[in-house]
Amino acid sequence: MPPVSGKLLGAAIAVALATGGPAQPGSATAPAAPAADGTVVLDGTRVPPSRLLSPEGAAYLRHLIVDKPFAGGPGLSDIVGERAHQDRIMRGFLEPMRRRYAVHVEEQRIGGVVTDVVTPADGIAPENRDRVLINIHGGGFVTGGRTASLVESVPLAALMRIKVISIDYRMSPEYRFPAASEDVAAVYRAVLKQYDPARIALYGCSAGGMLTAQAIAWFRKEGLPRPAAIGVFCASLGKIAEGDSAVLAGPLTGARPAGGAEGAPRRPPGYMTGAGDDDPLAYPQQSAALLAAFPPTLFITGTRAFEFSAALNSHNRLTAAGVESRFHGWDGMFHGFFYNSEMPEAREAYAIMARFFDSHMAR
Amino acid sequence: MPPVSGKLLGAAIAVALATGGPAQPGSATAPAAPAADGTVVLDGTRVPPSRLLSPEGAAYLRHLIVDKPFAGGPGLSDIVGERAHQDRIMRGFLEPMRRRYAVHVEEQRIGGVVTDVVTPADGIAPENRDRVLINIHGGGFVTGGRTASLVESVPLAALMRIKVISIDYRMSPEYRFPAASEDVAAVYRAVLKQYDPARIALYGCSAGGMLTAQAIAWFRKEGLPRPAAIGVFCASLGKIAEGDSAVLAGPLTGARPAGGAEGAPRRPPGYMTGAGDDDPLAYPQQSAALLAAFPPTLFITGTRAFEFSAALNSHNRLTAAGVESRFHGWDGMFHGFFYNSEMPEAREAYAIMARFFDSHMAR
Repeated sequence: MPPVSGKLLGAAIAVALATGGPAQPGSATAPAAPAADGTVVLDGTRVPPSRLLSPEGAAYLRHLIVDKPFAGGPGLSDIVGERAHQDRIMRGFLEPMRRRYAVHVEEQRIGGVVTDVVTPADGIAPENRDRVLINIHGGGFVTGGRTASLVESVPLAALMRIKVISIDYRMSPEYRFPAASEDVAAVYRAVLKQYDPARIALYGCSAGGMLTAQAIAWFRKEGLPRPAAIGVFCASLGKIAEGDSAVLAGPLTGARPAGGAEGAPRRPPGYMTGAGDDDPLAYPQQSAALLAAFPPTLFITGTRAFEFSAALNSHNRLTAAGVESRFHGWDGMFHGFFYNSEMPEAREAYAIMARFFDSHMAR
Repeated sequence: MPPVSGKLLGAAIAVALATGGPAQPGSATAPAAPAADGTVVLDGTRVPPSRLLSPEGAAYLRHLIVDKPFAGGPGLSDIVGERAHQDRIMRGFLEPMRRRYAVHVEEQRIGGVVTDVVTPADGIAPENRDRVLINIHGGGFVTGGRTASLVESVPLAALMRIKVISIDYRMSPEYRFPAASEDVAAVYRAVLKQYDPARIALYGCSAGGMLTAQAIAWFRKEGLPRPAAIGVFCASLGKIAEGDSAVLAGPLTGARPAGGAEGAPRRPPGYMTGAGDDDPLAYPQQSAALLAAFPPTLFITGTRAFEFSAALNSHNRLTAAGVESRFHGWDGMFHGFFYNSEMPEAREAYAIMARFFDSHMAR
């Protein structure tokens, strides 16, 4: 095998690793010397929208960063106004979603709790007659009842041709932990009268992802059987914002640093006030025995989401506990990105959710 | 269900999302206004070592950032010196590894190619008598023969109690693509005389991860059966550095921006010069049909590795093609982090690799 003739060629990875990469035209200025504790200061690092995004995804990220479309709510000091503001945002997501995915929505009181029951307009698939999904919506434990609810339920109901029950659980500031866990358990108890737990899956995004994980802990405490599978989306099994993404997600989405300049953890949502940091009913990752009892779990997030690092870590923790765990993230996408059904990234996420739940629920 | 009395509480996620997070004491200065195209400039963003790392992992990241232990090689203009430099680094990893994992190493020529055959000191496990792993080492297609080789093979040989054949393939600058693919295929052909392909798995890190993916394309072209599973570690199925991590990994490991200030893709390694950007034999992700023919694939990386975003994207592409794909990343870890066996994160990665290969190879 004769050598290929040729001059010495450009940068190789080993050398790039060793030297920190070749100097390139247009590079940013040299960074400040790192602190002795390994803290790096990102000065002059310019990050364009990820080239791995679809045109629609890149446009949505640009919209978030430049136009700040979700700003402007009155905040928690006017809870009625803030909920109305967030509901308007959710209805903005719902409008194209309802055109794309044909469903019926019906209000039903289940286990004493108000729910929205979402069913596909073209009927439940034969293999899903005895199966059901339970959705726990996002909105920071504060907003999203009956609106984020539908945003999270409509695509899966239509794509899987399955019934989705979305819970209008009690929220902050009127209620605190564990009121929502109690409501989820009340609905779950009622659903168990009709469905085999091996044919039930639970999922939610953001606060709803945290609540999904908390529900597994709560069910176990109550002696309820675990469901077939769960989807912890836009969240983790512990604190929602830790590690690198807690620091970087804010700046990378055009906002102030999300977690404070030194990466201090984001303050927990008000709903969680009073819950102990080491309480597995609040933060299931605190208990190794509880983790080992988790059902198969799917994590969905994006690299510019503040929960990204925590979700990645929960995926490893669950895997180490011997639990079937799957992780999917989209480069450049942010917290709750898949609420926008008009991006290929969102629809790819729905397809992964659908396949995961279908493969883990008994027929 | 009476309302919990209580005052309005702190930041909720919905509100944090809407406003970009609450202002916090000690926050960095407000960022510069984002560019109209959505490019953000990270000025004053301070990123400490991830709090999700083990003490050993955090110490290793700090060592990389502050002490720059892998700098100082002569570079490609002195290829002999550069290889010696990299080999010294690899022997530094090997020393504690050989103490931790007892193996025998034997040089064997297989299919005309020099290999290191690594076997567990306490014997091959009964269930692995008819199974074998093939390793394709990292080192930027330039360095690492017989050294990075062992760093990647010793832990799995010992942990799984299985034979690992590590290939000393032809490298740059003496050779170019597809010389290494030819060498891998030559070894694979010879191994197929003794082993069922359903009992063979291939894996590698960095250039070796790229080569593992390229091998699947090459085998298909040559009409060779595919192996049971592959591990694409520290790499992707396409270009190795794309998206957010290509821009951020350099600054986040205390080096200059890895991909140029505007996120321009890292220059490909010299070995790949001459390979077309759209050639699936070089970048398998270019062909949807090829992707769909991939065996079950495991990706292993870290959030501060330049390949992180590309690997995450390949995982989604493979999943969309209907292929069994698994992704594990460690927050705050960097390119090739698991070469350092003295961190829990590395040993957690070995355990995931071992379980993945074991579960996909026929008994």
